[in-house]
Amino acid sequence: MVFRASILTLYPEMFPGPLGTSLAGRALQRGDWTLETTFIREFGEGRHRLVDDTPAGGSPGMVLRADVLARAIDAASPEDDPRPRLLMSPRGRPLTQGFVRDLAGGEGAVIVCGRFEGVDERVIEGRGLIEVSIGDYILSGGEMAALVLLDAVVRLLPGVMGNSSSGETESFENGLLEHPHYTRPALWEGRTIPPVLTSGDHGAVERWRRAEAERLTRERRPDLWSRFSNRDD
Amino acid sequence: MVFRASILTLYPEMFPGPLGTSLAGRALQRGDWTLETTFIREFGEGRHRLVDDTPAGGSPGMVLRADVLARAIDAASPEDDPRPRLLMSPRGRPLTQGFVRDLAGGEGAVIVCGRFEGVDERVIEGRGLIEVSIGDYILSGGEMAALVLLDAVVRLLPGVMGNSSSGETESFENGLLEHPHYTRPALWEGRTIPPVLTSGDHGAVERWRRAEAERLTRERRPDLWSRFSNRDD
Repeated sequence: MVFRASILTLYPEMFPGPLGTSLAGRALQRGDWTLETTFIREFGEGRHRLVDDTPAGGSPGMVLRADVLARAIDAASPEDDPRPRLLMSPRGRPLTQGFVRDLAGGEGAVIVCGRFEGVDERVIEGRGLIEVSIGDYILSGGEMAALVLLDAVVRLLPGVMGNSSSGETESFENGLLEHPHYTRPALWEGRTIPPVLTSGDHGAVERWRRAEAERLTRERRPDLWSRFSNRDD
Repeated sequence: MVFRASILTLYPEMFPGPLGTSLAGRALQRGDWTLETTFIREFGEGRHRLVDDTPAGGSPGMVLRADVLARAIDAASPEDDPRPRLLMSPRGRPLTQGFVRDLAGGEGAVIVCGRFEGVDERVIEGRGLIEVSIGDYILSGGEMAALVLLDAVVRLLPGVMGNSSSGETESFENGLLEHPHYTRPALWEGRTIPPVLTSGDHGAVERWRRAEAERLTRERRPDLWSRFSNRDD
């Protein structure tokens, strides 16, 4: 089963963009995943293919029309499509590594990229869109967020990462931030590598890394730390 | 003063990428901001321009060398460079709209994109890199995170957004998620627009939007809601 990504956007030229290079790009060329874009404007109204209108109740900006977006969604994703339909939106559920892993284990994703002031609420309800946020900041549109989500998912697909990274020792995979890394040269600008890492004592190395990961998480992310220290083992 | 972005990367072909289109792309063409990339590999070791090595203490993956990265940083950002030096990293301080606004008010940013298992800790200390995370998930590298950060910053630069969006009424700008939006048609698949929005009563519209923003924040983001309800007004 190949992971199928369908993107609905007003800027199809943004895809695959950075996903066409490096790890994700090679995986795309190999057919480890597929990417298809739907240009929302093709489903617009009238001769000018209008996709947006002014917000009911007034305010600056424009709102993406429910009817236009629904037509685009129905064209990209039939009613029995098993893939989740996501709307990239700062109001959504925060993207986590757990959610990324769930997506990577499924058949793919239909990803709607919002633009303008927002999307008519009725199409979110009517088409069962799951709002997903990549973080607490505002982007010019959902496209960049869709690229991030796919980059995170694609690297977890079978065969994509090879042995270039272990996955399990990374930040968040165990609920902790990752420990510090060191490599050659042993001495750089008067700074040395912590001696335990070159001691050859694997147990001591593991204990040091675990302690450092815990220290960093406690210092930098009290929110993660409290979830970690209250977990059920 | 023009915002100057300097990116240090092993994948310079990823830039400007999606930042070359739409709002950010037009602003780049107009000269509202500048983007310069430094190819870290040009500062690599020996005939093969090696940039990474195996982690001290062992483990899968490779670590970006301190000496190589420091040479690239020194070439891109002189010692008296007033711009902050950021390292995109899942271990970093979470990116917020407040931090985005601070960056947009400054002279620019030097952005190091990590790759592989990580970056030698000593160069983070030695060059004063500020680790910044766009969210609690793992990307194939820092490039996508740098694109996100710049997209968020560029749209706040003077002249970039025009009157296409208000800025202040958006999610996070007031500590709340944004209220729902509606536009024509008035009736779609049996779904109507909330009558208050077409009542012409501006005070009632504002009260409804505020109540909806508070409801959504409370339901979806207890973390933001608790910060919001404990704020000092």
